[in-house]
Formats: sequence, C-alpha cells, structure tokens
Amino acid sequence: MEAAIRAAVPGGALDARFADVRARTRALAAPLSAEDCVVQSMPDASPVKWHLAHTSWFFETFVLERFVAGYAAFAPQFRVLFNSYYQGVGERHPRPERGLLTRPSLDDILAYRAHVDGAVAPLLERPGANADLTALLELGLQHEQQHQELILTDVLHLLSCNPMAPAYRTPESPRPAVVAPRRWLPFAGGLVDIGHAGSGFAFDNETPRHRAFVAPFAIASHPVTQGEFLAFVEDGGYRRPELWLALGWDTRTARGWDLPCHWRRQDGRWTTFTLRGRVPLDPQAPMAHASYFEADAYARWARARLPTEFEWEVAAAGVPVEGNFLDDGVLQPLPPAHLPGDDAPAQLFGDVWEWTASVYAPYPGFRVAPGAVGEYNGKFMCNQYVLRGGSCATPRSHVRPTYRNFFPPEARWQFSGLRLARDAA
Amino acid sequence: MEAAIRAAVPGGALDARFADVRARTRALAAPLSAEDCVVQSMPDASPVKWHLAHTSWFFETFVLERFVAGYAAFAPQFRVLFNSYYQGVGERHPRPERGLLTRPSLDDILAYRAHVDGAVAPLLERPGANADLTALLELGLQHEQQHQELILTDVLHLLSCNPMAPAYRTPESPRPAVVAPRRWLPFAGGLVDIGHAGSGFAFDNETPRHRAFVAPFAIASHPVTQGEFLAFVEDGGYRRPELWLALGWDTRTARGWDLPCHWRRQDGRWTTFTLRGRVPLDPQAPMAHASYFEADAYARWARARLPTEFEWEVAAAGVPVEGNFLDDGVLQPLPPAHLPGDDAPAQLFGDVWEWTASVYAPYPGFRVAPGAVGEYNGKFMCNQYVLRGGSCATPRSHVRPTYRNFFPPEARWQFSGLRLARDAA
Amino acid sequence: MEAAIRAAVPGGALDARFADVRARTRALAAPLSAEDCVVQSMPDASPVKWHLAHTSWFFETFVLERFVAGYAAFAPQFRVLFNSYYQGVGERHPRPERGLLTRPSLDDILAYRAHVDGAVAPLLERPGANADLTALLELGLQHEQQHQELILTDVLHLLSCNPMAPAYRTPESPRPAVVAPRRWLPFAGGLVDIGHAGSGFAFDNETPRHRAFVAPFAIASHPVTQGEFLAFVEDGGYRRPELWLALGWDTRTARGWDLPCHWRRQDGRWTTFTLRGRVPLDPQAPMAHASYFEADAYARWARARLPTEFEWEVAAAGVPVEGNFLDDGVLQPLPPAHLPGDDAPAQLFGDVWEWTASVYAPYPGFRVAPGAVGEYNGKFMCNQYVLRGGSCATPRSHVRPTYRNFFPPEARWQFSGLRLARDAA
Amino acid sequence: MEAAIRAAVPGGALDARFADVRARTRALAAPLSAEDCVVQSMPDASPVKWHLAHTSWFFETFVLERFVAGYAAFAPQFRVLFNSYYQGVGERHPRPERGLLTRPSLDDILAYRAHVDGAVAPLLERPGANADLTALLELGLQHEQQHQELILTDVLHLLSCNPMAPAYRTPESPRPAVVAPRRWLPFAGGLVDIGHAGSGFAFDNETPRHRAFVAPFAIASHPVTQGEFLAFVEDGGYRRPELWLALGWDTRTARGWDLPCHWRRQDGRWTTFTLRGRVPLDPQAPMAHASYFEADAYARWARARLPTEFEWEVAAAGVPVEGNFLDDGVLQPLPPAHLPGDDAPAQLFGDVWEWTASVYAPYPGFRVAPGAVGEYNGKFMCNQYVLRGGSCATPRSHVRPTYRNFFPPEARWQFSGLRLARDAA
Repeated sequence: MEAAIRAAVPGGALDARFADVRARTRALAAPLSAEDCVVQSMPDASPVKWHLAHTSWFFETFVLERFVAGYAAFAPQFRVLFNSYYQGVGERHPRPERGLLTRPSLDDILAYRAHVDGAVAPLLERPGANADLTALLELGLQHEQQHQELILTDVLHLLSCNPMAPAYRTPESPRPAVVAPRRWLPFAGGLVDIGHAGSGFAFDNETPRHRAFVAPFAIASHPVTQGEFLAFVEDGGYRRPELWLALGWDTRTARGWDLPCHWRRQDGRWTTFTLRGRVPLDPQAPMAHASYFEADAYARWARARLPTEFEWEVAAAGVPVEGNFLDDGVLQPLPPAHLPGDDAPAQLFGDVWEWTASVYAPYPGFRVAPGAVGEYNGKFMCNQYVLRGGSCATPRSHVRPTYRNFFPPEARWQFSGLRLARDAA
Repeated sequence: MEAAIRAAVPGGALDARFADVRARTRALAAPLSAEDCVVQSMPDASPVKWHLAHTSWFFETFVLERFVAGYAAFAPQFRVLFNSYYQGVGERHPRPERGLLTRPSLDDILAYRAHVDGAVAPLLERPGANADLTALLELGLQHEQQHQELILTDVLHLLSCNPMAPAYRTPESPRPAVVAPRRWLPFAGGLVDIGHAGSGFAFDNETPRHRAFVAPFAIASHPVTQGEFLAFVEDGGYRRPELWLALGWDTRTARGWDLPCHWRRQDGRWTTFTLRGRVPLDPQAPMAHASYFEADAYARWARARLPTEFEWEVAAAGVPVEGNFLDDGVLQPLPPAHLPGDDAPAQLFGDVWEWTASVYAPYPGFRVAPGAVGEYNGKFMCNQYVLRGGSCATPRSHVRPTYRNFFPPEARWQFSGLRLARDAA
Repeated sequence: MEAAIRAAVPGGALDARFADVRARTRALAAPLSAEDCVVQSMPDASPVKWHLAHTSWFFETFVLERFVAGYAAFAPQFRVLFNSYYQGVGERHPRPERGLLTRPSLDDILAYRAHVDGAVAPLLERPGANADLTALLELGLQHEQQHQELILTDVLHLLSCNPMAPAYRTPESPRPAVVAPRRWLPFAGGLVDIGHAGSGFAFDNETPRHRAFVAPFAIASHPVTQGEFLAFVEDGGYRRPELWLALGWDTRTARGWDLPCHWRRQDGRWTTFTLRGRVPLDPQAPMAHASYFEADAYARWARARLPTEFEWEVAAAGVPVEGNFLDDGVLQPLPPAHLPGDDAPAQLFGDVWEWTASVYAPYPGFRVAPGAVGEYNGKFMCNQYVLRGGSCATPRSHVRPTYRNFFPPEARWQFSGLRLARDAA
Repeated sequence: MEAAIRAAVPGGALDARFADVRARTRALAAPLSAEDCVVQSMPDASPVKWHLAHTSWFFETFVLERFVAGYAAFAPQFRVLFNSYYQGVGERHPRPERGLLTRPSLDDILAYRAHVDGAVAPLLERPGANADLTALLELGLQHEQQHQELILTDVLHLLSCNPMAPAYRTPESPRPAVVAPRRWLPFAGGLVDIGHAGSGFAFDNETPRHRAFVAPFAIASHPVTQGEFLAFVEDGGYRRPELWLALGWDTRTARGWDLPCHWRRQDGRWTTFTLRGRVPLDPQAPMAHASYFEADAYARWARARLPTEFEWEVAAAGVPVEGNFLDDGVLQPLPPAHLPGDDAPAQLFGDVWEWTASVYAPYPGFRVAPGAVGEYNGKFMCNQYVLRGGSCATPRSHVRPTYRNFFPPEARWQFSGLRLARDAA
C-alpha cells in the first residue's frame, strides 16, 4: 500500500472530507430520475445507480471488511454486483450488463450508501491511528471523486442518445470572456524530475518521481478552441487521410465520424450537445469531446504536435491549480475568465482534459500495491494515452500537476481537448 | 381495410372494451417500478414504458389523426419515438435503442395514455357509424392485447438477467392438478377449410378461408410436459446433433445452449425461472420457453413430429376456448385442472403457445390492407414459424382457433411449448 | 436407404454413366489454374479442389469403405478434410477454412480421384447385384452432379471478386433469340398428386408422393427477363421498403444492395458479370442471381406473386425436360431459342432456377434414410426456399419436374431467377 | 526524403545488392507451389504472390514512374492491386481480399518482377548521380528485405492452419548448443544518445538521434527460452489474471489462448509448429511467437520486466550484429552456438525479435518524408510496441542496433520473443 499511495492527510480533516465527498456524489444524482439512473447507454459507460453503489462497495470491500471486526455486509450479493474489475475480489457482474439491474432500486442503493457511511463513521474518529486504514480511506475518497466525474460524462452520453436532447441541468448562464491571441511559450527543458513527490496524496501511477530528459520546446498559451477546430472541419479535416494516424482513419471510417462528437449543423448554424442540452457552438470555448485521433489530426493540420506528458508537467510547474471545475457548477468548458500573465499557460487546469502524446506506461521503478487494491492502475497500462489537467467535471481538490488520467485513443465521451506544442525553433 | 380485418363489434360493447383493455395494460405495469419499465434487456424485447406508449401511439396515428379534425398531437416527437416498424408512417427510433429513452418519464407516458383515452372517448359514442373507424378501433384493441402479452414476456426476460432473480408478482399458489396419461387422438383429415370465417374479428393473416388437403393424422392429448422434456435432457438431447436441424445445432453451439431456457440444476434439484421468480421444475406442467429448434429436436427424439398448423386447426375445431390465460393471473403454465373428455385434446388454449411445423406464410389469396396499417402482418412472413393456442400471458378474449402467432425458430423468451403429432398408422 | 432414394438404374448403364460423370467433373476444372482451384471466396462457397476431393470422398466413405473388404484409404486424413457436413461420419474440417488447404495439391487430389475411380470400377461390373450398393452409387453420381453446378457457381463468385474481371471460358457466342410477349397460362388446380413416383432416381426430399389441394391459378409463359427487372430497378425498386419483406429490406440495407448482383452501370450502359467475364446486360435473357428477397419484391412490384412449388409442378407436368443446360456449354441464361406452343410455359427447365413461394419443408410422411447418408437433405429444412427447374449450370440428366433445389432467401450467387404467378381471376 | 532516409550506399555496390536482394526474394518462393503462394490465411498476413508483386510495385511506383521518362506500366491495374496502404498513391485493393486474386497468376507476377528488374537496371548504372533516386532505390531494397521476413512468417501461419502440418523446408538439422546459465548484466545508464547516426541507411523512425535519460538497470544475458516459458505454463500462467495486463487477459479469453502459439501436448510430450513442420519443443531455444501480452505476463511472473527500447539499445551498443539470421537457412530460433563473453548479452541479434516495454512512438523531432513515401512509418505509431534485434527470418544486412520493428501487442505470428530486465538493485 505504502508504495502505491502517498497518504498524509491531516488528522482532523478526514471526517469532514468524507462527509463532503459522499454528499457531493449524492447531490450529482439529485437532478436525475430513477429512470435516468438505471440505464447504461454503452458498455464504456455505467448507470448512475451503479456509480453510487460501486463507490460504496469500494469502502465496504477495502475498508469495512478489513478493519471492522464482524462487519455484516449490507447485502452479500452486492459484492459481485458492484465489483468493477478487481479479479482479486472474486466474481463480477459483466460490465455490459450493468444496465440490466433494475433491482436493487435507486432507493435501495441510497440506503446502501447510508449504511456504509454509518459503518465508516467510527473509523474516522481515530485519524492516523492506522496508516493503512488512513491510506485506504483516502484512496476511497479519491476513487469516489473519479466517479463523480464519470457520473457526469456518462449522463451526458446517455442524454445525447435521446432525440429529445434533454438537459441535465441549466444553471445560470456562464460568465462572458475574452480570449487573448494564442502565443507560444518557450521552455528550456533539460534533465527534469517528473512525478509526484512530497506528502500529499497521489495515485501509484504518478510515482516514483524520476529523472527524464526533455528537449527545449514551446507550448501554446491556450487550449485549442471550438472555433479553431471548426476551421479544421471546414478545411476538410475529416476527409483527408494524410492528416490522421492509420488507426485513427480506420476508426473514423468504421464509426462514420464526419464531424466532432455532438456537433451538428442546422440551418447554417453549428450546435453541440452539453449537460445543458443542445447549445450553439462557442468559438472561444476550448474544444471538448475530441478523441486522441482527432486531437492528433488537428495538431498535424496545424503544423504542430501534442505535448508529451513530461512537457506538460514541466509547463505546469508552479502554475496554481485554478480553473473551471466541477465545484463551479458551470458544467461546460468556458473561455478563460481572465487574461493570464505573459509567461504562464492559461487554462491548464479545469475546463478540458488535455490529450498528451504520451502513452500510459509505468514510470521507471513503478510498483503495484500488493493485494486486490493493486489492480487500481497498473493493469490498464496498454493502448491508452495520458491526459492532464482536469476538466469542468473534475472536483478541484482531485487534481495535481502530476495527475495522470488515461483513455483509449478512440474515446470521445469525456471532456477531452488539446493544447498544441512544438519543438524549440 | 375491409379486406384485412373482419370487424363486426357489437355496438354498445366497444366503449366498455376500450376502457377495459386500456386499464388492463396499465395494471400490468403496476407491480413494476419506473426503473423496471425503462430498461430494454435485448433488442428483441422492448421496455414496458415503450409498450405503454406505443399502444397509445397506434390509436393516435391510425385513429385520432385520421378521424379527429384538427387533432393536436400530445407531443409531436412521439410520432417517431414510438413508431415500431411502420415505414409508411415515417421515421422510427431505432429498435435496439428503445431502452435509452429515460425521458419521457413513465409519468409522462401515463399522461400520454390519458390524453389519448380522452381523445378517443368521443369516437366511441357513435359505434358503427363509420365502418373504417370501428375496424381501426378494434384493431387497436387487438394490437394492445398483443402488447399485453409482450409486456409480460419482456419483463420475464429482463428479470431473468438479474442475478438476484426477482419476481414480477407472487400470486396465490396455483391449484394442484392430475395429468392423465398422454393418448394419441386420431383425425381423418381430408379436404378441409382453413382460416377465419364469419363476422368476428380476425387478423388479415388468418384469411382468406381456403381449402387444404390434410392426410389422416393423430395428435397428442396434451402438450409435452417439463418432466417429459427433462427425460430428453437426461438422454443427452443437447449433445446429439442427429436429433437437430442443422441450423438448430449451429444455434445451440453458437449460443451455448446446453439446457432449456431458464433451467438450472442446483444441488441435484431442477429449477426454472418464472414471473414468480426461481421455482422448482413442475414435471406435470407444460414445457415453456422452448425454441422451435428444441421443440423439433424433442419431437424427433420422441419418434414423432410437430403438427402442421392445419392439423392443429382441424384438431381444435369445436374445442371451446378455455384454459389458463392472462385473465387468470397465474402467470405460468399449469397442469390441466380437469381431465378432458376422451375425444378432445386438452390444453389447446392457454398455458403455452404450441409450435407448429408450418412456416408463417400467406394463405392463398392473401391481400394486405392498403396504407401503413397494411404493414401489420404480411411483411414478416419469412423465416418464422406459426404457433397456435395462446398462453398464460395471453388475454382470453384475444385468441381463436384460427389465430396465428409467429416467431423465428430461435426465439425462446415467449411462453412457447409443443404438442406431438404423427401420421395415421 | 430404400425409403430415401429410388434407385432403378438400368444394368449396363451404370459403369458408363460413372465414367461420364466423373470425367465431366474433371473437365470443368480444366480451364482453371491450380491457383483458381484452391481459393475460397466466401464461407458459402468452396474451392474447386475441395469439390473435386469431396465428391471422391463421398464414394470412398459411403461405397468403398462399406462394400470393399479391406479397403485401404488413399489418405486417412482426407476423411476429415473432405467431409462436408456428415456428423455421423465424425470430425470435419471447418467449412470457412476450406480455402486454407494449399496441401494436398491439385495434383494430389486428381490422383485421389483416379484412386477412387479405380477402386469403384470392380463394383460396377455386377450392376444390380446389390440393391444398396447400386442405390449408393447412383446417389454418389447424383451428388457429384450437384457439385458440378456448384463448381461453376463458386468459380463465378470467385472471379467476380477479382477487379480484373477474368472469364472462366469464352465459348462461341450464344445463338440469337426472339422472345414472345409474356402471357398468363391458366391452370385449374384441384386435388393433385405432388412428388416423385415411379422407378427413376429421386432424392428423398421429393418423396413421398402425396395429395395436395391447389386452387386455380395462372403462371407466366416465361421467366422474368433482365430487361423487365431493369424496369423495377429504374422505378426505384431498391429504395422502396413497401415492396420488400421486412427481413429482405434489412438484408438489402445491411449488405448495401442497391442493384442486382453483378450489375453495374458504366457510361450509361448496363453490364453484368458472367462466366464469360463482364458483358452487356441482355434484356431478353432471364434474370439471374436474384435472391428470394429480390424475386419477391419484384413480384410485388409487378402486382403478381411467385408460384408455390406445387403450382410450378402442376404447370410442369408433361413438359419435356429441355432447355439450356450445362451440357450445352453456353454457361449463361439465354433468351428462348424457339417459341413455345401456346399452351405450355417456356424455359421451365434450364437457364435459371426459379424461386418458388414455398419454403423447403418435408413432404407429409417424409422419412430420412438411416445412417449418415440420411443427413443428406432433411436437416436443412429450415429457413430456405424451394427453387425448381435447373439452370444453365445444371447437368441435363440431373433434373426432373419434381426436383427440389433449396437456398436461403438471401442467396445470390446461384443462377436463380423467377417466374410470376397469380390467382385465377 | 533526405530527412527520412539516410542513404549513403557505396557507388559500385548498389547494382549487385539490387540483384542479390531481388533474387533472394524469388528464392524464398521456390519451395512453394502456386497454390501455396495465392492463399491468404488471415487479414494480417498476405499471400506470397502478393509480397512478390508488392515489392516490385514499390520500385515501379516510387522509382520507375518518377525517374524513367515515359515509363510504361507493366499492367496499369497493378497500381491498385498491389498498393499496400499508400493513400497518397490512390485506390488500394482491400487488404482482407488479397487472397482472392487467383489472377494474375504466379507466372504473371514473376514476369512482372522481371519487367521491373529490367527497367530498373539502367538506373543502377549511374550510382549516386541523383541522391533522391539512390535513396529511393535503397529504400526499395530495405523494404523488400522486410517483405522477405513477412513471406516466411506468413507462410508459417498458413501452413500452421493445415491439419496435415506440412513443412516449408526441412534443411539440415541445426547445430547442437550449450546454453550458459542466465546472468544479469548491469548497465549504468545516464544521459545517453538514442537513434541512428552516421552515414549508413536507416529508416525515418530511427531518427533523429536524441538524448534520453536512462536509469541504472540490468539486462539478462540470454532471451527467455522455451524451457523457461514452459515453467510459466505449468505454473498456471494462462489461468492467473493477476499476471496479465487487463487487455491481455481479455485477449487471452476472447481468443481462447490457453497455451503459447503453436504449442501442443501430445502423449505427454510438448511440440511446436515451425517452418520445418511440427517438432518437439527445444527447451534451450529462445521462446518464439509470443505476443506482447504473453511476454509481459511472463516477465511479471518471473519478478522482472521487459527492457525499454532505450535500455536495449544501450545494452546493444558495440555488440557485433551476429547471430542466426535468414541467411543461415536454419529457419528457427536456436540455442546459442557459442558462449558469449562475460560482459555482453548473447543472442541480441537474430533468432527472435525481442519485445520491449516501449510503445512505438516518434522520437523527439521526428519528421515524415514529404509525399506518399512518407506514409512509410509515422502513421502506424499507435497501439504498437517496439521489438529489437531481428530474427531467424531477418536478412542479416537488414538489422542495426537502432532498428525498430513494431507490432500490436496481440500479434503472435512473428518470430517474437523476449529478454528480461530489471532496475539496478
């Protein structure tokens, strides 16, 4: 465990954070009906009800069963039903059949959550007494924050399949913004240290901190905007194989992609689909729901490239983790609210995850944790790419400059965008 | 229209029957949650909510839009969302995506039903005034009765996918029964008249009444029971290709069928899954959920064959339409409640639909009705087999001796069983 | 055996016919290279080399192994490699992998054929001495004639996949013809006898002869021509779902059928692909390579229908088995060479197989032969339709008025056409 | 071009090398029949005839059409038929249909080769006169050497599909060998230079030479042997998900891998399939035909890991390119013929390609060549892993320490093995 998860949560904070994170998850389901919460719109997505249950299953399986003597399971069948992918824990309900579980009901699952909350409560009273317990509680909270984001991305996908184009929520209109022209910000690179260090929490995949050599590079001051991406579309970007990776072009062809995800042209006007329903394209807002293949093709068209995750981390060093996050309730990427200084990249954090050119691979010296919890990250390190920075659906406290998100190159349903980079002249 | 649907509903009855049928449909959904009603468990099945909406769509599209001047649609989008397969009506929501419609909600659909009921009401006050209108109203009711059965079979499939094996309802325990030994009942055959005649309602596929030659045959006094089918299983029936049609054996292999649908052996005891949940196999009860392939293989193993639909209709002539129907609320096939006379087949009606050896084909002289409503039956006459007699999920008033149900030979999720026949000695 | 195959081959003829049939099969491969003979262009088709081997396997397995004491197999592995679908004989090489067998070579297979011919020779010297033997030899020859036709249809499919559009052979140009206008020929129907009777050979599926009632009908004097089918195409036949069976329309959509098989329009002229290579459409020649779905849609468009196989057999009674057969070497359907009399349908035999509206089902009283040879026909009686009359790729001596060919409704690679019928006015 | 391909072939050598490479390719087809050469055993493999044609197409398209004024194509259709994946050249015959091309015949293709050889000959007389021409000729030869290896691996796959287990060739029995025990060889790492430098040929993907930081590591003195891999098999390696990447385990399950590729246990003895036919497992010989997933799982089981491609290149620096190559004619991996010195890894070159932990990605500063020839490498840099060192099917002169081969992680049909690495203690 220790090798995998750096857990040094200040004593008094854990109980308050537990209550807060758990309540926020429930709140995300509040605008939804039980019907909305039960359906699975594709195998990659899960029903909201499943997310609500699985995050409780995590605490039950890895904390309560281990640290509460004689713990009585809320419902023994849930051990199988809500196991996501932990082979070490035993059988799992097949992922593509998560949407068939009309029972247990949403109310049953909310009762399950309350039961787990009640059982965890006494463990929170002795913070730090047991380092393993503390680390697992922290991991459970970080895990639940990941599922908060997935609740929103999976709901967005579900609603996007509905011809009636319903909205999840329609909060107050987002603030207006002015975007400064894109500039190239130079970095010297060199022999740098990459990965997490220090006492705060980090996932095992951010460790160990290690040296890497980075050649001089420049990175764009802003993410690519929807307006910029529209220029790629209008220049025939989806019809020119020379701009795409071979596998990307095959994917485009097999899936019939001739436009970015959710984009539509009606009566000469461009719209996209968001958690607020169908809305006009905002040319100033960062591009979202791009696959790696589209991000890569755009960069080639723009005579640039995607940054490596090391370059991104170098560029993000010292930049405060501020931006448009889940906590802001805007639910969509926004143009930057304020002009950044001349020397720091804008919108690195929040708004959209930024695809990097780096595949998701173990850092030198990476070790998985022993036991089932060690299945958390390492076994997925194949055929996926790293994204950095968090999105408008990410809890602010969940992100760090060293945080590595990862998805297969064809994934489109996340809030995924891109930022350009290039070699130093 | 007239060529397709024989409609001669007694004047005063239509309004009462309309109210009755519509209320029964709603009642079938009563034991279910909104979550149960929204999910689609396979492309062949539909969500209950969809059934509730589509049966109203039928009245709206074929009756209200035509016979109510200036009729305002409840929701224009429903015209597409709840069209099943009528190309003549326009676009349709794709069948495999019916389960993605978390909106409109179940409450919205119930309001839609009430709206349609209210709009139809005035039309019921002038029964018989317009023969076309009367025929379409009658067709709408018959159509809705078909969907009543599908609601139950689709819910059974959905619940069977849930590892918790939930019950739809657990009504009072069914009555005990004694089954008389199976006997062979001889029929002389000859040149017979087949198909619907007279003034009652019939679907177009039951017409025209026509002559056919039937050789002398014998038919079994009872449907094959679960106990009899178990003997086939225990004799290696699922491992012996020589008993199966080539396509049946391929289907068995591809789908991994090594037992009848829903059967399981646990601790030496056989169980099956029903609308009452998982229950012990009842050796006296008729076999249900057999595909045509399994029915055909069983008959070959038993050195007999399935009857043709003409033989079945000859055997059913004059037999009263009595049996275990949806109206009885038992929700599963039962051993016969009383011994039949010596000269009539038992359980022809109700309990289980009986596969016949006849493919679903047009009767000589068959004509489809003009317009979209003519898509009702004819276009499905390919690669399907005829079943006769109704099941425990069929409304009693819906069935006739000439009624032709039809499913592809691999279908298992219906209450489908079999009765043996053989050539006259 | 006796129940299945009516075998009454005149004594002296069998050895000559054996030599003749076997030599013709070899001759069919003569215009092909070893490369042409090894490739399998789709799972439904087989390599020519496989046909050459399998027809010998049939004699080896069902005749030599049974009737030659101490028979030594040419190569024991061939028992598995060249078994088509006889579960009773043991393992089989998977059908879709027949094209992977680059070894044994074509030369090896020709040696195998010679070996089998040599071993069968002594058995032919005592014709009629053993009724079972005689029946199996006859069955083997009939079986080989079926594969002669398949060699041509499978080669046609293979060559059609080659962008270079190579020809199998380019025999002398076919004779010109004049087609008389299509007329409707009336038949009274009634209680008729259907199926094979008498002492000549017939397959088990043509028996037993039995009574059927046929209502009065009319049948077209000629098959539908390519010119007539072109009118259907130009009237939007491939874009109008109301003309198609639902399953046919789905097939059309999934497979992207927007024209008949092999048809192409280039520079305003229509061509099709034949064993002679790509040639102009001949408006007078019978339509070929139609699926059942297309035949059925055409008939609906033409306000007619396909005949049942009983109607076809009634119409063919007494018509001499003459026409454009494999023996003529023309290798494509032709306009009729002579005008038929006023009262008999033309081109019933040869040119193209004619789809009937009848599904392939057992005749009343049908029994399969005992043993593996009984797998010949019965187990395929599901989801297929009957075709009648033979084609330009069928050996003339192979066809009878009672002969039942059968293919699934989506099959297009055979020489399959259609003839219209309608109810008596 | 210059940026992509370093071409500095000594003047007089090119014509001799051209003759030599072209003759060797033809010689590889010599043991095969025309039947062997036409079949495609899976979409990933190509027929030998196609390889023979495509390598000539490459010279025709990129050299003759550009540098020979008025060049007349041998057959215009070949431009489409034998284009592999160059979108910039125009249409291509679909890859999965390469095996349908029974025409042009093998003889036609050999004539095509002779035609191209004749047309190229005059261009070889002025070596170095035109740098672009020289670079393209060199690229064509290197390209053809790649296809020499693919001819063997594709033939091996084809023959492995044949139940008769035929051999490609059975050369003289390989030399016996003694394997020294495996040792760990330490390397200090540090800031190193990676990639091709200097004047010899290299592919674009080996450039530009660049700096990278490599932490101290140790690498195994030998590749993993078949005997070592057998221990993994016998320890349940194919039944333990905790040893596998998630995607690897899913692949194993979907494809039914329960043994290494080609391995079989018969009567208690292990065999494998090779170009010599089915042979006993040689416990001393390097493991071959491992997918990345199996290599990775083995390494995890052995408490080690795969080396990165940078570590491999560091370890290979200064090691002479010697080993068991295509030129040796052994056609299978061998135990080492001589004991290596104490300080250098053995069998780095030849025998089997070694999977590295590195995904196939562009080196920093990578640029593709302009025009269609630039499609050579860059567009495949997604979801593939790098292999190093060459195999027993690779021409000796084709390999360098910086050479990067690449395949998807599920590929098994290449001569792919593995060597272990670990972090410095």
